[in-house]
Amino acid sequence: MAHTPYRLVLLRHGESEWNAKNLFTGWVDVDLTETGEKEARRGGELLREHDLLPDVTHTSLLRRAIRTAQIALDVADRLWIPVRRSWRLNERHYGALQGKNKAQIRERYGEEQFMLWRRSYDVPPPPIEDDDEYSQAHDPRYAALPPELLPRTECLKDVVARMLPYWYDAIVPDLLDGRTVLVAAHGNSLRALVKHLDGISDEAIAKLNIPTGIPLLYELDENLRPVERGGRYLDPEAAAAAIEAVANQGRK
Amino acid sequence: MAHTPYRLVLLRHGESEWNAKNLFTGWVDVDLTETGEKEARRGGELLREHDLLPDVTHTSLLRRAIRTAQIALDVADRLWIPVRRSWRLNERHYGALQGKNKAQIRERYGEEQFMLWRRSYDVPPPPIEDDDEYSQAHDPRYAALPPELLPRTECLKDVVARMLPYWYDAIVPDLLDGRTVLVAAHGNSLRALVKHLDGISDEAIAKLNIPTGIPLLYELDENLRPVERGGRYLDPEAAAAAIEAVANQGRK
Repeated sequence: MAHTPYRLVLLRHGESEWNAKNLFTGWVDVDLTETGEKEARRGGELLREHDLLPDVTHTSLLRRAIRTAQIALDVADRLWIPVRRSWRLNERHYGALQGKNKAQIRERYGEEQFMLWRRSYDVPPPPIEDDDEYSQAHDPRYAALPPELLPRTECLKDVVARMLPYWYDAIVPDLLDGRTVLVAAHGNSLRALVKHLDGISDEAIAKLNIPTGIPLLYELDENLRPVERGGRYLDPEAAAAAIEAVANQGRK
Repeated sequence: MAHTPYRLVLLRHGESEWNAKNLFTGWVDVDLTETGEKEARRGGELLREHDLLPDVTHTSLLRRAIRTAQIALDVADRLWIPVRRSWRLNERHYGALQGKNKAQIRERYGEEQFMLWRRSYDVPPPPIEDDDEYSQAHDPRYAALPPELLPRTECLKDVVARMLPYWYDAIVPDLLDGRTVLVAAHGNSLRALVKHLDGISDEAIAKLNIPTGIPLLYELDENLRPVERGGRYLDPEAAAAAIEAVANQGRK
C-alpha cells in the first residue's frame, strides 16, 4: 500500500456560545465564541507548522464545526479543498436536556444521574418533544431524513452506531485514496470515532476527553489500525492541560 | 417537470485586495477586502429576504469566491449545505498581465490593446511564464490537472470552453434534482455562463458586466432556458448603479 500510513486529523470545534454559558447543546446550532474562533485559528496554524495539510475535509451539519474547519483551513491556505458534510458527524443529541443549564440539571437530578446522562455509554437522556424550542424536528437541514433516523435523544452508543456508516462509506475511501483527511466535529462524535479506532471498551470510553481546537493526528496502517494508540496531538502540552479542564466541565 | 422553473443564483465575489489596487488578478489567490466581506454579507441578506435559500453551492478554487459563499451562506443560515468546487469556475486566467497594474498596462500598450485584452472575445493576453511569481504552475490546488489543462492565459472564449463541462456535468444535475443552486464565482466565469444561458453573441458579450455581491436569479424552464432573459438581480437599483461602475474600471 503506497499510501500508508494513512493520515487522519481530528479537530474538535472550539468554545461555542453555549459552552461558555454551561448549557447542554447537542444538536442546537449555536455559533463559536471569539475564543472558539481563536482556537480554530490556532488549529490551522498547527496544521501549517506540522506541514499536515488536509486534502479533503469532513464536517458535521452544525455551524460550530463547519466554521472551525473554515477558519482552520483559511489559516492553512486550504480553503479550496473538497468539503463533505453529514449529520452523522453531529454532536450527540442531548434529548430533553438540550438548552438546559448543566449545573441546574446536576443540582436537580443529583450527581449520579447527571454523570449517567453525561458519561454512561448506553443511557440516553429523556427524548426531546418535537414542539420543544430546541428540537430539530422542523429544521430544514434534516428535512431529507426519514423520521426514524432523526434522533430525539442519544447515548454515546447511539452516536457510534450512526457515525460508523459515515466512517466506512465516506471517510475511509478518502484515506484509501491517499488523502490527508481532516474531520472537524464534536466532543462525542469524535469520541465515538476514537473508541472505534483504538478499540476502547464501553467502560473505558467514559474517561476519554478530547480537547478543543488541537488537531489530533492518527496515522493508520493498511488495516486502518492506529500506528500509535491514541494518536498524537499536534500540541501535546496544551492537549494535556485542556483534557484536565474538560474533565471538570459541568462542575461550576 | 415538477421542479420547474429551476432556480439558479449567480453571485460574483465582492471587492478583492487587488480590485482595490487596480491590478489584474486572474488566478492569483487574493483575499476579499473588508468592503468585499460587507458585499458578501449583503448578498446573504438578499438571499434571506427573498427566501431564496440555496440547497447546494458551487464555487471556484479561489478564496475570494469561496469566502464570498461562506459569508453569504452564514448570513442566510445555510452553512450546512453541500459545497462543490472546481477550477472550471475560476476567474479568467489573465496570462502575463497577472499582478500588473491596469492603468500602467493601459498607458504602456494604449487604449486599443488594453481593451482588446480586457474585452475581446478571442484575444488572450501573452501567456505567463511558469517561473513568474504569479504563475499557478506549482500551485498545489492544481497539482492534479494535467499540464495541457492548466491555463497559462485565457480569453473569454477559453473560459466558456472550460466552464461549460462543469455546467453540464455538475450544476445542471443539481438543478434537475430540484435544488436551488448558488454559484459563487467571478466576473468572467459568470459572464461565460450568462453568455451561454442568454445566448449572447460573441460581440455583444463584451458589453455585459455583472456587478459584485448582488445575487442574480435565473429561473430556467424545462429546457434550461431563462424564463426571463438576463435573469433578475435581487437588488435591481444597486445592480444598475454597479454595472455603470464596473464599466469604468481600469480608467483611473
